[in-house]
Amino acid sequence: MAETYKYEKIANDILHLIESGAFRPGNQIPSVRETSRQRNVSISTVMQAYYLLEAQGWIEARQRSGFYVSTTLPSELPEPEISSPVTDPIQVSMRDLISRVALRDSRNPNLIPLGAAQPNPELSATTQINRMMTSVSRKMGHQSGMYDYVPGTRKLRAQIAQRTLATGCSISPDDILITSGCGEAINLCLRAVCKPGDTVIVESPSSFDALLCLDVLGLQTLEVPTHPRDGISISALKFALEHNTISACLLGTNFNNPLGSCIPDESKRAIVEILSEHDIPLIENDIFGEIYFEDHRPSVAKAYDQKGLVMLCSSFSKSLAPGYRIGWVVPGRYQESVEWLKYTTNLAAPTLCAQAIAEFMISGGYDPYLRRIRREYANRMAAMSQAVGRYFPSESRLTRPSGGYLLWVQLPETVDSLKLYTLAFKAGIAITPGYLFSATEQFSNFIRLNAANWSEDVERAIAYLGNIIANMM
Amino acid sequence: MAETYKYEKIANDILHLIESGAFRPGNQIPSVRETSRQRNVSISTVMQAYYLLEAQGWIEARQRSGFYVSTTLPSELPEPEISSPVTDPIQVSMRDLISRVALRDSRNPNLIPLGAAQPNPELSATTQINRMMTSVSRKMGHQSGMYDYVPGTRKLRAQIAQRTLATGCSISPDDILITSGCGEAINLCLRAVCKPGDTVIVESPSSFDALLCLDVLGLQTLEVPTHPRDGISISALKFALEHNTISACLLGTNFNNPLGSCIPDESKRAIVEILSEHDIPLIENDIFGEIYFEDHRPSVAKAYDQKGLVMLCSSFSKSLAPGYRIGWVVPGRYQESVEWLKYTTNLAAPTLCAQAIAEFMISGGYDPYLRRIRREYANRMAAMSQAVGRYFPSESRLTRPSGGYLLWVQLPETVDSLKLYTLAFKAGIAITPGYLFSATEQFSNFIRLNAANWSEDVERAIAYLGNIIANMM
Repeated sequence: MAETYKYEKIANDILHLIESGAFRPGNQIPSVRETSRQRNVSISTVMQAYYLLEAQGWIEARQRSGFYVSTTLPSELPEPEISSPVTDPIQVSMRDLISRVALRDSRNPNLIPLGAAQPNPELSATTQINRMMTSVSRKMGHQSGMYDYVPGTRKLRAQIAQRTLATGCSISPDDILITSGCGEAINLCLRAVCKPGDTVIVESPSSFDALLCLDVLGLQTLEVPTHPRDGISISALKFALEHNTISACLLGTNFNNPLGSCIPDESKRAIVEILSEHDIPLIENDIFGEIYFEDHRPSVAKAYDQKGLVMLCSSFSKSLAPGYRIGWVVPGRYQESVEWLKYTTNLAAPTLCAQAIAEFMISGGYDPYLRRIRREYANRMAAMSQAVGRYFPSESRLTRPSGGYLLWVQLPETVDSLKLYTLAFKAGIAITPGYLFSATEQFSNFIRLNAANWSEDVERAIAYLGNIIANMM
Repeated sequence: MAETYKYEKIANDILHLIESGAFRPGNQIPSVRETSRQRNVSISTVMQAYYLLEAQGWIEARQRSGFYVSTTLPSELPEPEISSPVTDPIQVSMRDLISRVALRDSRNPNLIPLGAAQPNPELSATTQINRMMTSVSRKMGHQSGMYDYVPGTRKLRAQIAQRTLATGCSISPDDILITSGCGEAINLCLRAVCKPGDTVIVESPSSFDALLCLDVLGLQTLEVPTHPRDGISISALKFALEHNTISACLLGTNFNNPLGSCIPDESKRAIVEILSEHDIPLIENDIFGEIYFEDHRPSVAKAYDQKGLVMLCSSFSKSLAPGYRIGWVVPGRYQESVEWLKYTTNLAAPTLCAQAIAEFMISGGYDPYLRRIRREYANRMAAMSQAVGRYFPSESRLTRPSGGYLLWVQLPETVDSLKLYTLAFKAGIAITPGYLFSATEQFSNFIRLNAANWSEDVERAIAYLGNIIANMM
């Protein structure tokens, strides 16, 4: 047998084991030496096979520990293209759809939960945080029931400040305000820098919570083309700034919702510079920033902020659990306004929740926990990507996020995502139709899928969706 | 000895025991029969003595259980008169003072806490709620860390709905939205019915949190004369409505902050009718409603609401503990707007806190707990009232609240409450200067005192304040 044939055969055999699920994303595959011995071929032949698989994206080498099945497996499906929204500001109005789709479905335990962007309950740190709450309440006694006034407990702000180092920032605990989640942080920032009627630049597509918040605050949105991997188009952003009166820019810089795009460091710097030239505040949503699959924590735009114009918003909702309602904001030059807005909105965040999370971080439990869920979510994203590639029509397109747990799927043009949503709902499957992610109907043939709850049931649901879609074409 | 002399002697002896603190407010005094036997006088002589003390307000009869020392003891000091604010709407701006006085002092554990309106930490139900949190987190498992989306857990809404029966209302759980405290409820209501530049009617004096909220939302306030016992003047309210364009009216109907006034039922009905004629929403703050000292829960204005114009706001901050950040609103005809405002402000209230409070209520622990703290706060209010009467200059005036734990003191005209605040602060005593309770300086010689933390140290602090005040005259 020619060596060429041999390495292709080896590569094919391993690929077969990956595709069948025998090797799952994140699994180590046999070492080069082992395979060489088993197949009775030279080390270099095995290396050739492994390089081929690596080049195709199926496996990846890790320093000093061999080869592993990639956590983001190559799908058969291409990525969606950069979006092309209308270029005029418009008023969003999608409340009916949101209350029907997002609020009703997220409360229904009988649906297969591919819709809402909630983390997996079983992967959440609920047990750890609840245990910490018991210990904190014992330690603090009666004080654990008292107000934890603006800006919130210093202990937690100190922990958050320490972690921002890894994102390229140098932030003091005094720069941070504890909020009731990231949504509140964004709401306060928008209220600090905009008045009703103003226009805000957002990504296209954008999370419906962000679009709804803008609508309720009486703000216009200007949707700017966004690349599924690299985020907002810098040239389109420039154009938008030059042709409109803009009050703020609201971006999900790392693994944004729904695209999962992650703006490269250099582009983050460029965006901050462009906005600084126009003196326009950037409200940065980094809620998924800790759920990265690659080696390093991606930076935040705040790291490049020279003028205090970046308002960094985040929370523990995706990286611990959402029910404690603890987030934060680094409001830069708008700190005072944002603090008064927080004080008059609800005085303080829930004391025991903030204290418990601080103690969990101090205890050293956060990093090991994050390492575990990053691996888990990477595997689930890979598994769901593969399933979509297998069961959805080949005309579909699929994002390749390197973090988070959301996938954005472009279906054939003729497939209406709202009809698909209705048929899926009848079959007990919750998905989010693309209509929710823009004020226009440009994403009528897109859906968002949450991969956090991957299971055999979910795989069956994806197969079932694939069938419905095929029938709709 | 003549019988006349005898009954006066008996009355005097008992009064002496009350004033010396041997009988504390709420204590039962010896029965008529017992005293008759001990003093060897007729039953009718003892009855005469007791009637005299009752008429003077020192004791009170309770059906079938004898006589008790009144929980609101008569002070030597008269009540303040009805306020007379300026009659034009103005913009409040007192942020510096609030951040200095309210936020800084409330965080300082070394001050005698007569300033902030916080409940007594040791009387708060923190231990009970924290215990309930542990049990709920065990029962709910991972779900205890997930979102409890708008309108919030039905279990808690059902408990709140049940309790509103006692306030004269018939409210369904579906009418209620769980919020992050009463302040948030008020903020959401104001945002639902007003836009920047609008004018809102408030009491004079008003809580500084309310005034600040109006300021931050860009609203004008119109302060209306308010009686220290009966609340807002109905004729002044009518006049204000006829001569101004008003968007909403914000009132603390029961034991409001800082006056402690409680609007009589008939006046509540009249206020709702007048506002209904003008189609103006009433944002009703009932946060102190459960802390009543008399036999019955006072009603709420919502009970008289025919047109869905009353937006009832409350929370567990005064009646359980403030740190859990759980309140609610019954927004009437504005329900949809308020719910969207809540959703886009912070999605949900903290899950475990809401669940734990619901379970505490279901367990039957709430009513016995409330009975205990009502008694405690009544005693503390009586003790502080007596101390103010004893140590403050006789030209002072003092409110007689029948609920809550706040006292509003009018000092001689020459005493500047901000100077007093500064001198008190240097002596380690926190008080709240009257300047904070109006956009004008009409309360420059008033202070608010929190009686919740009554102790021997507090009594010494009151004596010390009396001294400073005497020196300032």
